[in-house]
Amino acid sequence: MQHPPVVPMVADRDASDRVANVFADIRATRQADFINNFWRVIANDPAQLERTWAELKAVMAPGALDPVVKELIYIAVSTVNGCAYCIRSHTAAAKQKGATDAMLAELRAVVAAAAKTNSIATGMQIPVDAEFIRE
Amino acid sequence: MQHPPVVPMVADRDASDRVANVFADIRATRQADFINNFWRVIANDPAQLERTWAELKAVMAPGALDPVVKELIYIAVSTVNGCAYCIRSHTAAAKQKGATDAMLAELRAVVAAAAKTNSIATGMQIPVDAEFIRE
Amino acid sequence: MQHPPVVPMVADRDASDRVANVFADIRATRQADFINNFWRVIANDPAQLERTWAELKAVMAPGALDPVVKELIYIAVSTVNGCAYCIRSHTAAAKQKGATDAMLAELRAVVAAAAKTNSIATGMQIPVDAEFIRE
Amino acid sequence: MQHPPVVPMVADRDASDRVANVFADIRATRQADFINNFWRVIANDPAQLERTWAELKAVMAPGALDPVVKELIYIAVSTVNGCAYCIRSHTAAAKQKGATDAMLAELRAVVAAAAKTNSIATGMQIPVDAEFIRE
Amino acid sequence: MQHPPVVPMVADRDASDRVANVFADIRATRQADFINNFWRVIANDPAQLERTWAELKAVMAPGALDPVVKELIYIAVSTVNGCAYCIRSHTAAAKQKGATDAMLAELRAVVAAAAKTNSIATGMQIPVDAEFIRE
Amino acid sequence: MQHPPVVPMVADRDASDRVANVFADIRATRQADFINNFWRVIANDPAQLERTWAELKAVMAPGALDPVVKELIYIAVSTVNGCAYCIRSHTAAAKQKGATDAMLAELRAVVAAAAKTNSIATGMQIPVDAEFIRE
Repeated sequence: MQHPPVVPMVADRDASDRVANVFADIRATRQADFINNFWRVIANDPAQLERTWAELKAVMAPGALDPVVKELIYIAVSTVNGCAYCIRSHTAAAKQKGATDAMLAELRAVVAAAAKTNSIATGMQIPVDAEFIRE
Repeated sequence: MQHPPVVPMVADRDASDRVANVFADIRATRQADFINNFWRVIANDPAQLERTWAELKAVMAPGALDPVVKELIYIAVSTVNGCAYCIRSHTAAAKQKGATDAMLAELRAVVAAAAKTNSIATGMQIPVDAEFIRE
Repeated sequence: MQHPPVVPMVADRDASDRVANVFADIRATRQADFINNFWRVIANDPAQLERTWAELKAVMAPGALDPVVKELIYIAVSTVNGCAYCIRSHTAAAKQKGATDAMLAELRAVVAAAAKTNSIATGMQIPVDAEFIRE
Repeated sequence: MQHPPVVPMVADRDASDRVANVFADIRATRQADFINNFWRVIANDPAQLERTWAELKAVMAPGALDPVVKELIYIAVSTVNGCAYCIRSHTAAAKQKGATDAMLAELRAVVAAAAKTNSIATGMQIPVDAEFIRE
Repeated sequence: MQHPPVVPMVADRDASDRVANVFADIRATRQADFINNFWRVIANDPAQLERTWAELKAVMAPGALDPVVKELIYIAVSTVNGCAYCIRSHTAAAKQKGATDAMLAELRAVVAAAAKTNSIATGMQIPVDAEFIRE
Repeated sequence: MQHPPVVPMVADRDASDRVANVFADIRATRQADFINNFWRVIANDPAQLERTWAELKAVMAPGALDPVVKELIYIAVSTVNGCAYCIRSHTAAAKQKGATDAMLAELRAVVAAAAKTNSIATGMQIPVDAEFIRE
């Protein structure tokens, strides 16, 4: 059992027009009725809701990188930041977009190896090689 | 001009047999003569050098994920950890393995969006949706 | 339901004189009987309790900055550090000192924007402008 | 002497129309000709430039919180994230908007006290008081 | 009540030969039958299980530093990273290897003081003294 | 060449009585004339200088833990926080108090292994074993 968030979640029946418009676009984009807690909580600040949904929608869409790859990168960041909500919601999203258990296992191995070598590079204060300054 | 690391870098002429063996495998694996500072610094601890090279070689190799994708994940972690050495060396590695400027731009946009939404989810103490606990 | 802390909480009846003195000053300063878990847990180390309460009492008092502003800064730091206890206890403190929901919403928007731009500045390794080195 | 960023900075003469429009709005909003490195670097990704400037302009404007208070919160986040660029550029911005040395000194004292108590609360795994779950 | 991990835990009856071999070595090394959740979860990736156990076994063994000191260092890192699992499991390990409550209290005081002074050094952008560059 | 700090360093000739008293106690405690940049920078806020020196002097002194062990813990925290100043100044302090190169090498190996396993525990959302909740 988890604690409630620091502000209440906005139910559909309590949504202002601005909030309802974003909720409708989330449903249309994902082709699913489910609106997860993240959006219902930040809906308390409609400007933040609009900005954040617009950014996520644009940034996580297919482009030079595959949407599954983008979800993996998102999970990597969330792991370093220790954001349980973000790890769980984007692990679900990654799987829904086609990530396999093998891909997720390799993701975790890369994140763990990066955490280890980041710590070594910082702890030993390793200077950047001239070769890496401007390839 | 950067400060030197907290321990000296190990030149080829000073390498013990254990260190020389790892350096030889790095050169063979990468098909390049260049050994970057990271390996020359951790060579002061030969067991750490062996363990870390063995892990990186296995983890960053092709598998369920493409080597370029693995480099992008590595850069994402290094950005959150603020490791300048790691960002620069793996940006160079990503480019050498085929990452384009467009891919790197999208990587940074995903990392930035994740940093933002991680901060929102943590700051508002959003509880994990039951739907995400076990898909 | 949360797990207990790694050391037991110190009840009033178990408080040594040193601990009781700090508890009394917390009650007098806040004009409230309630002592929150943070102080009851660190009371296991009376020197740490004395040092930390003295520092918090001095640092969070009115000065060049308003006490509400100081609570907002505290919440910002706690959000980046992912400290759930600290976010919840200082959100309560901020509200008690007069922070409104609108102020807290703007706080979260600034924290989120800073998290995003911090990630961009680090990831792109942006050099500091000469104009900012010494104004 | 610092290393150059991982992508080149966009000079005015090389700016596309999209980039030039944002640069013009930055100049008009700030009533100053100077465009700092952050914007010249992210201008390599015009969509990111537009999104980030629009967000910063909205979020850092006066509202329920004073613009100086917002700059202080921004510096607090940047300190925890270890972003030297962000600390220096927003310390300059805070001063330009009226922050005094005394305010900045108190800011740093609050950030330091929060870093310390965050570490204690996490290290001792202190459970959240029922009183703080929903005020 | 906690949520389950993102992958199932591997019970003894489901362990492959590779996994069973590592589990047997954990039991032999620790002279105890209990295998904690960490190993049962990462057992889903046998290569990661082998690599990580081999590293932990080597790194946490007696050497120039005492095993208790190594556990304290481990707890310090886990506190900064906000890893509740790691803080609790290695606090138990430290106690089992002989750490006293007084040692753990001093550990937390050092970690808290370091968190505070780290924040001050970063926030004030203090340059490294020439005396510390190469002793 | 590093940038100057965000506030000027306080030279002996500019020290107020409060600052001069702390500087004198630093010199007496360390039995050395050298005052490093950290203290000269925070001397701009005499209350912070007094509080921080009093805390460091008490916390880093011999107790249940050896002063060298305390320096190692301090370096571990500073590595995770990416504080270059703190890593370099306390590596120097650790050596001066008797830390050997072998001890520092083991420290770095433990920190690196902890960073790796912290990332795994968080990324896989591993629940705490009942055995670790209250030993």
